Amino acid sequence: MSKQNRIQPKLLKGFRDYMPQVAMMRENMTDTLKGVFASFGFAPIDTPALEYSEILLGKGSAETDKQLYRFEDNGKRDVALRFDLTVPLARYVAMYHRELGRPFKRYHIAPVWRAEKPQRGRYREFVQCDFDILGTNSVIADTEVLALINASLSALNIKHKIRINNRKILNGLLESLEAEEKSVAVLRAIDKLEKLGRETVIKELSQEAHLSSSAIDQVLEFTELSQGQLKTSEIINKLSNMLGNNKKSQEGIEDIETIFSTLSAYGIDESAATLDLSIARGLDYYTGTVFETELVDLPKIGSICSGGRYDNLASLYTSQHIPGVGGSIGLDRILGAYEELGRTNKRSTPATILVLVLGKEDLAYSVKIAQHLRQKGFKVELYPDMAKMGNQLKYASKKGFNYAIIAGEQERKNRVCSLKKLENGSQHNDIPFDNLVNFLKELN
Amino acid sequence: MSKQNRIQPKLLKGFRDYMPQVAMMRENMTDTLKGVFASFGFAPIDTPALEYSEILLGKGSAETDKQLYRFEDNGKRDVALRFDLTVPLARYVAMYHRELGRPFKRYHIAPVWRAEKPQRGRYREFVQCDFDILGTNSVIADTEVLALINASLSALNIKHKIRINNRKILNGLLESLEAEEKSVAVLRAIDKLEKLGRETVIKELSQEAHLSSSAIDQVLEFTELSQGQLKTSEIINKLSNMLGNNKKSQEGIEDIETIFSTLSAYGIDESAATLDLSIARGLDYYTGTVFETELVDLPKIGSICSGGRYDNLASLYTSQHIPGVGGSIGLDRILGAYEELGRTNKRSTPATILVLVLGKEDLAYSVKIAQHLRQKGFKVELYPDMAKMGNQLKYASKKGFNYAIIAGEQERKNRVCSLKKLENGSQHNDIPFDNLVNFLKELN
Repeated sequence: MSKQNRIQPKLLKGFRDYMPQVAMMRENMTDTLKGVFASFGFAPIDTPALEYSEILLGKGSAETDKQLYRFEDNGKRDVALRFDLTVPLARYVAMYHRELGRPFKRYHIAPVWRAEKPQRGRYREFVQCDFDILGTNSVIADTEVLALINASLSALNIKHKIRINNRKILNGLLESLEAEEKSVAVLRAIDKLEKLGRETVIKELSQEAHLSSSAIDQVLEFTELSQGQLKTSEIINKLSNMLGNNKKSQEGIEDIETIFSTLSAYGIDESAATLDLSIARGLDYYTGTVFETELVDLPKIGSICSGGRYDNLASLYTSQHIPGVGGSIGLDRILGAYEELGRTNKRSTPATILVLVLGKEDLAYSVKIAQHLRQKGFKVELYPDMAKMGNQLKYASKKGFNYAIIAGEQERKNRVCSLKKLENGSQHNDIPFDNLVNFLKELN
Repeated sequence: MSKQNRIQPKLLKGFRDYMPQVAMMRENMTDTLKGVFASFGFAPIDTPALEYSEILLGKGSAETDKQLYRFEDNGKRDVALRFDLTVPLARYVAMYHRELGRPFKRYHIAPVWRAEKPQRGRYREFVQCDFDILGTNSVIADTEVLALINASLSALNIKHKIRINNRKILNGLLESLEAEEKSVAVLRAIDKLEKLGRETVIKELSQEAHLSSSAIDQVLEFTELSQGQLKTSEIINKLSNMLGNNKKSQEGIEDIETIFSTLSAYGIDESAATLDLSIARGLDYYTGTVFETELVDLPKIGSICSGGRYDNLASLYTSQHIPGVGGSIGLDRILGAYEELGRTNKRSTPATILVLVLGKEDLAYSVKIAQHLRQKGFKVELYPDMAKMGNQLKYASKKGFNYAIIAGEQERKNRVCSLKKLENGSQHNDIPFDNLVNFLKELN
């Protein structure tokens, strides 16, 4: 290929490649999550990346439309890449609800695409990890989802706090204030409490939601009930006194009560899951339980797992009424947090042992060592060339192997090998072939 | 949502959804493969689904262009969905060859998109599973790749036969026949030997490759050398006698010799890997070792794993000379074969145990049972509602759970539970909570 015919290799803006180090971390994360999901009985599903635009857009907003990778395919169909996993799930259950039955528990880990303005740590292609329990109104499902999140983040070794609220409580309050139709504006305002402070929220509740000042006082009194040092049971008592006369609020309070009493049966205490009446979640989609999750060691990165209960998932596509509850774990946000917390992976190989190949005559013996160790469950690379020993050892150090195994003519003839610990260069010689597995097990 | 505003839920032609049963099978397959890849020291990488069309098309043919999902993005960039994982790999190593070093062993399991005419078992979106060793000319790498394939298919419990050839042998023969420039036409003709038979191939060698009848005789004699009952060592001797004078052929013969002697050090015998001089692989891309893999119990589905050695992967994007060897496992083809062979999965849950929830008072105790078992490594679903016991048991049978655990008031008060074996309806009562784990272990 002549130089002028060459194509400049480059990535699209907002997209990323995964180097082995990062790909391995991501693999470990998803493997861990899949293990936890399976242990709770959530099954995987998958849907196509490409769908009819009409289906993905649904009743979508102008904003969704702008973010969509949308085009005409070779068959003149108006198609687009999925921008989330919720819309495809709605389409999926609308199509297969009979076959799937109720309840239906699924997870879906897959990439989505959004033509957003790229920001640091935010890409136009990213992996979503969603899980839901569909087809039941029971708050038992809400609690299972919360327990799943707790187990997932614990398995990822992430110190977390799930902040839980219930939409019905505030909606009941608004009902009693005769301001129910202002619910979305009120939720949006409350959502800013932590970020922008009390004054801004009061201004917004007055100017955007048009609440009277006494109504604003009551909304804030409610929201701030969980900001102090009160125990959950005490907050629930106060809420019952404040709002118990409203049927909707009372339902929400009872849900919260069941959730927290059940969470303690799961062994999940208030350091990992708390009531936070200021959690609003902007979307009008949620109807009951809502939650966000803070990474305790790095709260500034925002919620790493959010979700809630919704009344009717697939109304756009079917007359079947399908309620559910679910959440989404922000894998890329967690990967970014790992990096900020210095929990990076310096190894670029999944193998821990490199078996050197020193000469043509030694190849078969080196192969035998490598295969023997693989069959015993070790992760082993056979150096795929006959480079100088020094170069093979340099490669071993650079990639992050723990051990190099050296077997030249002498070793081969005596059916032994040498093992170099790459961390400090120390070497053990004349380890009998038949003793190598035990030797390695004792080293670890 | 009124009926007239509803959107008809449907899939694009040539695309598919994965039901839990199939998604679980695919997950198991990829998990198994990832485990084997790691045990051989292959690291995962990932690249974006979307790239500049210029890069994906490369020097591509009109056919590639027609199959491409290509469009203009919101930033007026000419972009497309990747149609394979080889072109992105070439672009990737061109960009990062310094950082990656040599040798570099990677695998990549990811979806690709082709706007092909959909056929039975062939979709417009499918998962590829590629693995390569880059940056070395050594035939040791070829053998590692073959051993990896053998280990992968064995781990998937697939009876297979890898058919191995080396391009150089035939190319040397053509050189000696002064027909080297006809190599591609000859390879295409030979590729049809098994499918279309000897007569068709002779016709094509004459009409398309314009070989003389004596040249055709020699090509066929060569190709058919491995069709009989000769051992590999005998074929190699015959080849040496026939073609040993040609330097290129001799190189190929030596490579084959090293590969087969090394494969036996891996413990791989001729029932799993054989020399087949009729294996051509249409692409002119390959320069040395080439291979295909037959599924012994279902040969008609074609090769389930193919690949070979290439001289220079990334010449379109860099002046760096990067040789390598690799292959690709046809996951969807194997999934299809599993179905044809009746190796389907009837369960639609990854969990084996369903813990019933019989009443509000019993919820905490049921939760405790489920969590206890999960912590001991069992996969357990807690029924996420308080339906009638009969309905919960019906659900358990339909989903394919092995056991249902029943704990009502009586059981809770006595800290015991009942266990129903769903296969035959047999029930064990009054199993003490503290003995449940042992009880289940003994059942399995």
